[in-house]
Amino acid sequence: MMRQAGRYLREYRELRSQYPSFLDLCYMPEAAAEVTLQPIRRFGFDAAILFSDILVVPDALGQTVKFSKGEGPQLDPLGGQGDIDALRPEQVLEHLQPVFETVERVRGALPKETTLLGFCGAPWTVATYMIAGQTTPDQRPARMMAYSDPETFQKLVDILVDASADYLVRQVKAGADAVQIFDTWAGILDEDGFRRWAIEPTRRIVEKVRSEIPGTRIIGFPRGAGARAVSYIEGTGIDAVGIDWMMPLEFARDALQPRATVQGNLDPIALLAGGRAIDAGVDRILDALSGGPFIFNLGHGILPETPVENVERMLMRVRGN
Amino acid sequence: MMRQAGRYLREYRELRSQYPSFLDLCYMPEAAAEVTLQPIRRFGFDAAILFSDILVVPDALGQTVKFSKGEGPQLDPLGGQGDIDALRPEQVLEHLQPVFETVERVRGALPKETTLLGFCGAPWTVATYMIAGQTTPDQRPARMMAYSDPETFQKLVDILVDASADYLVRQVKAGADAVQIFDTWAGILDEDGFRRWAIEPTRRIVEKVRSEIPGTRIIGFPRGAGARAVSYIEGTGIDAVGIDWMMPLEFARDALQPRATVQGNLDPIALLAGGRAIDAGVDRILDALSGGPFIFNLGHGILPETPVENVERMLMRVRGN
Repeated sequence: MMRQAGRYLREYRELRSQYPSFLDLCYMPEAAAEVTLQPIRRFGFDAAILFSDILVVPDALGQTVKFSKGEGPQLDPLGGQGDIDALRPEQVLEHLQPVFETVERVRGALPKETTLLGFCGAPWTVATYMIAGQTTPDQRPARMMAYSDPETFQKLVDILVDASADYLVRQVKAGADAVQIFDTWAGILDEDGFRRWAIEPTRRIVEKVRSEIPGTRIIGFPRGAGARAVSYIEGTGIDAVGIDWMMPLEFARDALQPRATVQGNLDPIALLAGGRAIDAGVDRILDALSGGPFIFNLGHGILPETPVENVERMLMRVRGN
Repeated sequence: MMRQAGRYLREYRELRSQYPSFLDLCYMPEAAAEVTLQPIRRFGFDAAILFSDILVVPDALGQTVKFSKGEGPQLDPLGGQGDIDALRPEQVLEHLQPVFETVERVRGALPKETTLLGFCGAPWTVATYMIAGQTTPDQRPARMMAYSDPETFQKLVDILVDASADYLVRQVKAGADAVQIFDTWAGILDEDGFRRWAIEPTRRIVEKVRSEIPGTRIIGFPRGAGARAVSYIEGTGIDAVGIDWMMPLEFARDALQPRATVQGNLDPIALLAGGRAIDAGVDRILDALSGGPFIFNLGHGILPETPVENVERMLMRVRGN
């Protein structure tokens, strides 16, 4: 259930409360492995996803990243060329060493038949945080820079392409069976921007990862892509595409499944609402997509306030019990 | 340029500063007509759009609506069935009388060849504000109610369908040449919700308006619809569809223009960024869409901080000067 797998679980909140900061927890292999395993123990999902955050990459590049309780991420925003030049790509892999150790521990503890997914943020999405310094409703600072000074913005994206590809390669070497690239804010881009800032950087990451580890299975998640998911699949070369809950199911079946495995797409708010909304949502998704290559999932991250019983109800429905 | 036409103009801000509240201004025919005419005088646009707000309908229904400076709308949120029953549909048209007077004044003052557009918010979008009481990043309160208690939510939508249809009919009778239905938050809905809460209520409005005034030209704007714009056009019966800047141009040309006039779609952030971003954006749109039925526009409302020179540059480019 996407990468915020733990937040809705009592056992996660108990463990989390013992650590002063969310980011610290991402760098503590024993604890991060435990958090990764908690939902597997409780629900027996087919796949586990590494407990981490997309902003470990800017942190590893030397940008100041903090998570204040209930406020989302706070970064020292990049002001322009000078701040981009000051990033330190050479230290990224060393900084992220604890994450690789987490992957090793999880892989060792997981049942053989359970897939372990590594992940990173896509360059566009990570850049929106690096430039704004925080979550924004419309990603305006990055969009402004991409329109006003595309050459400088390209330099930041290039750094993120290389760092992200190296990061994914090391996750696979440490034991990840497949990796996912989250482009949460891809959908806000106009057509030209979508090609240049969402498709092209992800294509380069896919190419770099596969040049080092041929055959690596890669899932892309271009949230809000709508019909552009077709050009995203074709342009990036990913194996599977995560779809949000706004994606029409017929379109996913007819236009996406012939090109890639489809993963999704129950609305997290339907899961939160519970009852009939879960049953009807699950049934529609299974009816439309279970005839082709398909991974059931939410259409975005689970909301922390989701009752565990709702997750159980969803799983019963998916598993046909 | 969408409905917030005035905010970027000095002459609007001067006039606005003389009125204590934004909503008051919407109900003062002389002033509202002046604001509607300001951009036409300055730029000679082909069409004027009525100065008003989508939230005059909840206000007319008796819900408390306030606009605090820089904070967006504040409404007393509807808590459930009781609050919905307390709405007063019978008083809507009388309450909105000043708007119809504004339309009459504008139509009288506009050059004959300049189209006057009336508008309303679509029921789904208006309902998101009525239930949340404010702008929300994800429209969660309305989505929760629609999932948890669709019967009650349907009652609210039914009230809005009737009020909106009556409101548009009276705008046309007062002199509007065409009307636009803004469904700003349509894109957040899942497939079933999109059909039930975006397409179906708009279809009913279109039907009711045309049953009273056959042939009324109606533009729909299902923001974020992506590929679902096809089913939106076919399901609602609108004549023209507004597209946001995320809509791929090839898709708009191949899938939408055969079915409806297309209106859009320069990214307001490209207009704000200026320079090359404007030129390249305008050129791409004209190249893709000017071979079919097409109205050049932004892909969403103009941002208040947009320099007037940028609007001038855009117009020069569109007009081929």
